[in-house]
Amino acid sequence: MEATLRPLCSRFLLPLPPPATRTLSSILSPVRLPFLRWRMPTFVRCSSSPAPPEKAVARPSSELRRKAKGLTPDERLVALRKQFTRPDVAIDAYIIPSEDAHQSEFIAECFMRRAYISGFTGSAGTAVVTKDKAALWTDGRYFLQAENQLGPDWSLMRMGNPGVPTTAEWLNDVLMPGCRIGIDPFLFSSDSAEELREVLSKKNLELICIYNFNLVDEIWDELRPSPPIEPMRVHSIKYAGLDISSKMCSLRSRLAEVRADAIVISKLDEVAWLLNLRGQDVPHSPVTYSYLLVENNSSTLLVDNSKITEEVMVYLRNAGVTLKPYEAILTEVERLAEKGTRLWLDKSSVNAAVVDAFLSACKRYSEGYQNKQKKKSTNKASKNKGTTEASELLIDGPATVYGASPISLEKAVKNNAELEGMRQAHLRDAAALAEFWTWLEEQIQNKATLTEVEVAEKLLTFRAKQPGFLDTSFDTISAYGPNGAIIHYRPEPEKCKTVDDKKLFLLDSGAQYIDGTTDVTRTVHFGVPSPREKECFTRVLQGHIALDQAIFPENTPGFVLDILARSFLWKIGLDYRHGTGHGVGAALNVHEGPQSISYRYGNMTVLHKGMVVSNEPGYYEEHAFGIRIENLLAIKEVDTPNRFGGIDYFGFERLTFVPIQAKLVDLSLLSTSEIRWLNDYHSEVWDKVSPLLEGSARQWLWDNTRPL
Amino acid sequence: MEATLRPLCSRFLLPLPPPATRTLSSILSPVRLPFLRWRMPTFVRCSSSPAPPEKAVARPSSELRRKAKGLTPDERLVALRKQFTRPDVAIDAYIIPSEDAHQSEFIAECFMRRAYISGFTGSAGTAVVTKDKAALWTDGRYFLQAENQLGPDWSLMRMGNPGVPTTAEWLNDVLMPGCRIGIDPFLFSSDSAEELREVLSKKNLELICIYNFNLVDEIWDELRPSPPIEPMRVHSIKYAGLDISSKMCSLRSRLAEVRADAIVISKLDEVAWLLNLRGQDVPHSPVTYSYLLVENNSSTLLVDNSKITEEVMVYLRNAGVTLKPYEAILTEVERLAEKGTRLWLDKSSVNAAVVDAFLSACKRYSEGYQNKQKKKSTNKASKNKGTTEASELLIDGPATVYGASPISLEKAVKNNAELEGMRQAHLRDAAALAEFWTWLEEQIQNKATLTEVEVAEKLLTFRAKQPGFLDTSFDTISAYGPNGAIIHYRPEPEKCKTVDDKKLFLLDSGAQYIDGTTDVTRTVHFGVPSPREKECFTRVLQGHIALDQAIFPENTPGFVLDILARSFLWKIGLDYRHGTGHGVGAALNVHEGPQSISYRYGNMTVLHKGMVVSNEPGYYEEHAFGIRIENLLAIKEVDTPNRFGGIDYFGFERLTFVPIQAKLVDLSLLSTSEIRWLNDYHSEVWDKVSPLLEGSARQWLWDNTRPL
Repeated sequence: MEATLRPLCSRFLLPLPPPATRTLSSILSPVRLPFLRWRMPTFVRCSSSPAPPEKAVARPSSELRRKAKGLTPDERLVALRKQFTRPDVAIDAYIIPSEDAHQSEFIAECFMRRAYISGFTGSAGTAVVTKDKAALWTDGRYFLQAENQLGPDWSLMRMGNPGVPTTAEWLNDVLMPGCRIGIDPFLFSSDSAEELREVLSKKNLELICIYNFNLVDEIWDELRPSPPIEPMRVHSIKYAGLDISSKMCSLRSRLAEVRADAIVISKLDEVAWLLNLRGQDVPHSPVTYSYLLVENNSSTLLVDNSKITEEVMVYLRNAGVTLKPYEAILTEVERLAEKGTRLWLDKSSVNAAVVDAFLSACKRYSEGYQNKQKKKSTNKASKNKGTTEASELLIDGPATVYGASPISLEKAVKNNAELEGMRQAHLRDAAALAEFWTWLEEQIQNKATLTEVEVAEKLLTFRAKQPGFLDTSFDTISAYGPNGAIIHYRPEPEKCKTVDDKKLFLLDSGAQYIDGTTDVTRTVHFGVPSPREKECFTRVLQGHIALDQAIFPENTPGFVLDILARSFLWKIGLDYRHGTGHGVGAALNVHEGPQSISYRYGNMTVLHKGMVVSNEPGYYEEHAFGIRIENLLAIKEVDTPNRFGGIDYFGFERLTFVPIQAKLVDLSLLSTSEIRWLNDYHSEVWDKVSPLLEGSARQWLWDNTRPL
Repeated sequence: MEATLRPLCSRFLLPLPPPATRTLSSILSPVRLPFLRWRMPTFVRCSSSPAPPEKAVARPSSELRRKAKGLTPDERLVALRKQFTRPDVAIDAYIIPSEDAHQSEFIAECFMRRAYISGFTGSAGTAVVTKDKAALWTDGRYFLQAENQLGPDWSLMRMGNPGVPTTAEWLNDVLMPGCRIGIDPFLFSSDSAEELREVLSKKNLELICIYNFNLVDEIWDELRPSPPIEPMRVHSIKYAGLDISSKMCSLRSRLAEVRADAIVISKLDEVAWLLNLRGQDVPHSPVTYSYLLVENNSSTLLVDNSKITEEVMVYLRNAGVTLKPYEAILTEVERLAEKGTRLWLDKSSVNAAVVDAFLSACKRYSEGYQNKQKKKSTNKASKNKGTTEASELLIDGPATVYGASPISLEKAVKNNAELEGMRQAHLRDAAALAEFWTWLEEQIQNKATLTEVEVAEKLLTFRAKQPGFLDTSFDTISAYGPNGAIIHYRPEPEKCKTVDDKKLFLLDSGAQYIDGTTDVTRTVHFGVPSPREKECFTRVLQGHIALDQAIFPENTPGFVLDILARSFLWKIGLDYRHGTGHGVGAALNVHEGPQSISYRYGNMTVLHKGMVVSNEPGYYEEHAFGIRIENLLAIKEVDTPNRFGGIDYFGFERLTFVPIQAKLVDLSLLSTSEIRWLNDYHSEVWDKVSPLLEGSARQWLWDNTRPL
């Protein structure tokens, strides 16, 4: 029975790219352990009423793995295709997505199968390998990077360009009817696997879920990174604001509302938020590979035991959370089916393997329930009418309740402690940035030769000195001149540019602190900017100011505000090809939903008081420069002189306090109220950040916050 | 077979109110004729695969009609309920919508059944009468009016207020399972009837389509107005720009694209636009009650023959258009089914009676086609594979192609001749308004006692003097003081207010000219406005200016721009509860789709070059005043200095040239560029309109267009 109908997730076929890069982790453990993963004894055809695993068994995939030392990219393709012909595989094509089993944005290195097989390391992309073709789909942010990284065997499919098919359309086109397309069902959300199957079936192609093993893992050589084993830690109530039992209580009343008995929580940041735990399994996000099952009277965390410290063990015991191995997820959902659980599943985030395992177990166990029920109904027959009995028959026994995860919105709406943590983290981050900009300006003045990578590394040292610093919140985009026009540029040590005083320099960076998460972009010029650069910068700034100053009624979806940031550019025929704002977690993921401020009008999530969003309009002139100005904002209630409609009106509280370079502003384009905004902002920056600075950095802040 | 899937029309359950009123016609023929209408011999259950009329027969409903002289509102309800018990009716409730058989906004008086039964004369509303209850649904624009007009037997259902059920939800609530709900299938679009049936079926209520007669007509007394019989006329190619054969050719290629053989055009303005004909059957819209069937090689206009002049007869003959009686619509679609036609049906506009008649005829005739086909397939069996034959079998025979009418968008995108007609009509309209405002200011200065109705009537005389004037384009909203806060206020001679120099006066009016359609609102004060009135007026004006000045990339849906008109009000916690812009026809309906600029985000129609939209933000302070500033705008290409993305950027050309009262502007709130906009606009008004004026009106225009 479905509680909430959601539109089919089209992420797989038409990814809405999250605006950040992902990279090989620098914080992964150097210790290498055999890599364990639950696998089914054999493959099954994916279907909406699947007949998959009879019984799940654990098996180290290393047993199965061929040792293929240091394969060249060409050799990898050959090795993968060899797997197609195995009698226990027998497929004509294999799809390798970017995802891990939790639909994470940043994933552990050992799961970067798409990067391994294709050579393309961008954060978004899907590889498809047939017996004689190999193609990679990625979006506009990565066309250049993919062109550089893909070998001659690969075709680049430029998503969004006219005439470019989706992966499924392409498969329908290049394969004969009857062909079999393999996927690893752990790596596809249930929604996207269903959608894929549906499209493929139009040309009589069959989607095969290969449970036993991931074909890329099978050929991955010895250099495959080990899975992460870093310990979890308790996230202090001082920063979390709400304890685990309050959160559980709220979640259980949501379950009760839709008559669900349990929920599978699969998104790593949702597990971390609900349990007030943090981890270090993936770069940039303080999370741990785990699943959480919350039932009416119990909850079970499925996680590698080696990550549980004594402190966490005691904490979880006190909170009534049982521990089980990460690999037990399929047997656990089967146990729920056996108990006759009505299980809430978010098919857009829970992977197809978990959903199918539950559905298939439901099938096995529901017969027993129906028999019991029939007996009951015979006993009651004299008392009640037939119709009532019929509906009871339908209700009892294991069942699914499909709906978006209720954690997502609760997590997005920050409480006061979370907001205060974000404010404090942002002030320390601003101090680090002031010290960094002071240093960098001095270096450029002294004609030092610094590459984009060296600049980013130095920035990290300034942040690392701040109390509570943990990690960067994404890979720093340190982009000089034309590199700034590559929206998700990531400098490589060998071939990146030197930063000097001739062109614009765009720096988009952020950090994870114990109390909050930051994400800030500034664009500067160390010499004399051109009129063109100033005009474009000023129009981006006008958009930034217009969004910052927006006041809007409650129940406004984020996309409504997007035009405010864009309209000044539109006036002269300019635009930018990314959204204007994304949600940000509190000491959690730097990109989180459900809200966004975007020119893609599909996200109807309304902006709530307490949500944090970025405000980051930009402009990118290919082969010349990139401009972006980004602050984080918290949504607050505004005490407007009127309250038309008797409702609340919301506005923004700024969290980011970093000077905006006045040199780049063309004052003739600004209205007096825009100039006032800039002066007020800089005055606020000085007031809030100067107490954390001394010496030259304090002087730099003073110089850069003077009124225009 | 469906060519285009459209979302179910929810208009019936949740009407999106068109921003205008409708009234009893002042231009209807005084001649009264017996009222003819096609009726089925008996009622049938509505269903998606209906088994309705075996054969349609014509029958004057006057034969059936009880003569119930001058019934009181209470007596009407009693009489209607008596009809429920007739053996050929046997229903438990009857739904009386506002619509005519063509989903027109303005309808002939003889079709105003909802107004007759309920007493509520607003343009939007649905009456539902059960055996012991009577309820009327309307939206926020009409709450006050409905409260005043409904008798004590009626409950007012305030749509949009929390907890207020839809008509179907209410019926599901108040009736027992198994009850029968009657509707007149001519008055429901096929979509809305289907949706209604679906919701009612949840509680086992049955929807009954009563084809034979409309139950309200059955009880309507002798004073029921006669149907209109005014003649049609040819709309000159000088104003139409494109001749009938070009339009037909374009339509037929659209049919060919979706492999349709024919289309039913049911919207009266679409028939008028396609044939370059105009009529006078309804107030305010220059259209004639008719259906148009366009087939591959022929077309048939179904219209009352008495409306066809000799000129129109010759014109249609030359264009190859055959004439048939209006009442023949059901037999005509049956004929199409018999011919094996693949018929394009827009289920959101074509009524359920027509759609069901075609579907039911398809059923009858398709068997014959399948038999023929089987013979063919046996003959060909040796040559072709079975699969090919199977699909041919499916393709042949009568079938439906569901999709939005292709006329709607073509009509909305004006050609140069249409735009030029609009420009010229607006200049004459502006001259009439200048003379009117001159006169009114003088009257107020001389302390004349003028009611809102008298003011509106005088305005009509100024417009009527202009060449090419035909009619008002909607009922003039002449609203003084607190009446201005009633968004769709319509003054009544007996109880309307006197216009003087104490409060704001809002005037929203428009006209139909031979060459174009106008719609303009100005708000003025003849004395000294309060600071509050000035502040609100200025913020509405800022929104008007922001939208007027917008530049946006092609492929932008209208709702994206809505916030531009609203954000200045939001800053102080104000808003308005209507959309910002609607489409306007060229010498056609004052409200037309498919585009709109609205805070309702469902309309994804993008704004095209050549579309005409209104720009009409407002603010309404209950019991105090109303403000609205409305111009019509044509979308034009803008020569921006850049063309990011290689696409076109659009902006607006103003069509309306009427001064905006400077006295109401709080200059301290305006930016210099907003002041520049106002001065530039007024200078343009003077340049364009002064040549059409002399004497005091010319002086008034001069005085009211001086720079601030």
